[in-house]
Amino acid sequence: MALKGVIFDIDDVLYDGTSQARTSRRAALDAMIAEGLEMSLEQAEAELDGIVEKYGSNYSDHFGVLVRGHTREPVNKVVSAGVVAYHNTKMGMRPFPDARKTLKELSRRGLKLGVVSNGRGVKQWEKLIRLGLEDFFDAVVISEEEGSEKPDPGLFVKAAGKLDLKPDECAYVGDKPHTDIAGANRAGMTSIRMLKGRFKETKPQSKEEEADLTINRLSELLDVIE
Amino acid sequence: MALKGVIFDIDDVLYDGTSQARTSRRAALDAMIAEGLEMSLEQAEAELDGIVEKYGSNYSDHFGVLVRGHTREPVNKVVSAGVVAYHNTKMGMRPFPDARKTLKELSRRGLKLGVVSNGRGVKQWEKLIRLGLEDFFDAVVISEEEGSEKPDPGLFVKAAGKLDLKPDECAYVGDKPHTDIAGANRAGMTSIRMLKGRFKETKPQSKEEEADLTINRLSELLDVIE
Repeated sequence: MALKGVIFDIDDVLYDGTSQARTSRRAALDAMIAEGLEMSLEQAEAELDGIVEKYGSNYSDHFGVLVRGHTREPVNKVVSAGVVAYHNTKMGMRPFPDARKTLKELSRRGLKLGVVSNGRGVKQWEKLIRLGLEDFFDAVVISEEEGSEKPDPGLFVKAAGKLDLKPDECAYVGDKPHTDIAGANRAGMTSIRMLKGRFKETKPQSKEEEADLTINRLSELLDVIE
Repeated sequence: MALKGVIFDIDDVLYDGTSQARTSRRAALDAMIAEGLEMSLEQAEAELDGIVEKYGSNYSDHFGVLVRGHTREPVNKVVSAGVVAYHNTKMGMRPFPDARKTLKELSRRGLKLGVVSNGRGVKQWEKLIRLGLEDFFDAVVISEEEGSEKPDPGLFVKAAGKLDLKPDECAYVGDKPHTDIAGANRAGMTSIRMLKGRFKETKPQSKEEEADLTINRLSELLDVIE
């Protein structure tokens, strides 16, 4: 396969987003329970799931909703303990062990690199920066900044354009069939599915969600892209 | 002097808030300049001062205002680099070296301890938690949660009440004559001025802003409160 560009998803592709999210959440709940949230860890996890479901993931006061009515301590004390613990775990964010090596080698081979990701602009950039990967990419397209989300093929086409390439000259590496693979396929890119994280076992629901290629780790890109 | 309670301000009393703020801001501006903010550090500091002045300190997009129009990089990339650097410096927050020792000894002597602070609830609690001091205090009164700010004596009276004490049984330790000392005096507390941080040289503007006692470091409380 002769490609000129490789475009990446962030979560569960460049780093282990599923584990990081679990670790951060667990640390926050442990800290809140230690400061006086009167719930078991299991209860708190279930409640928080419900709250995120109900208010959406971009809501800014999940912990407040969780804590109010379930502590004899000041609510802000308990919430702040959770926020601090949550943020502290971000110091441990690291790319997948082979990510930097793979990006460097693809770049050395003359391939242009980009990112297409669903999420908030500053949050997704924060991840790239904490991972120390921000300088590898000549095009970073984030859904919030574009006003549409994957699987909209427009995001993929835009990223290719920013790399001065046509979509069919690019591969897209993602983990989620419904957004990543379907979107890349619709845009006419070579779709590469990485089997990591919480969507690892998810079956394609249609022809469009079937990837051209499948990898288990990023370094395998070095074999499939020549 | 026979007191039953000691109530503290947070910034520049329990920790070196002035230096911490300078360090965090400098780290954020350095990071943004490294990521493509086209300004000198001096220019950026002056601009940011103006932005904080104009939009207020609780506005959530100071860095965005600073960066827009002054970079060829994506704005969210530069802003996120600043935010990450800013938050990373918070990992280094420590109480004044004698703070924990002093609080422990006051507590051992049977004095009740509290906090009265101006600011946002979660932010001020975050400071106490990052400093590891949150469990020393039986009353924490923060302006946002009360709907009024120091020098309103109501905040001081409220904190004394939460400690089951009368205001005249309490001392208040603060650094700013206009808010801390005037407020404590109005409430009928013993006012103790700590000479630290950016208000160190500020002269009292009225009789009400004159402290009953002055200290240079927290451990001196152990001599003046018996």
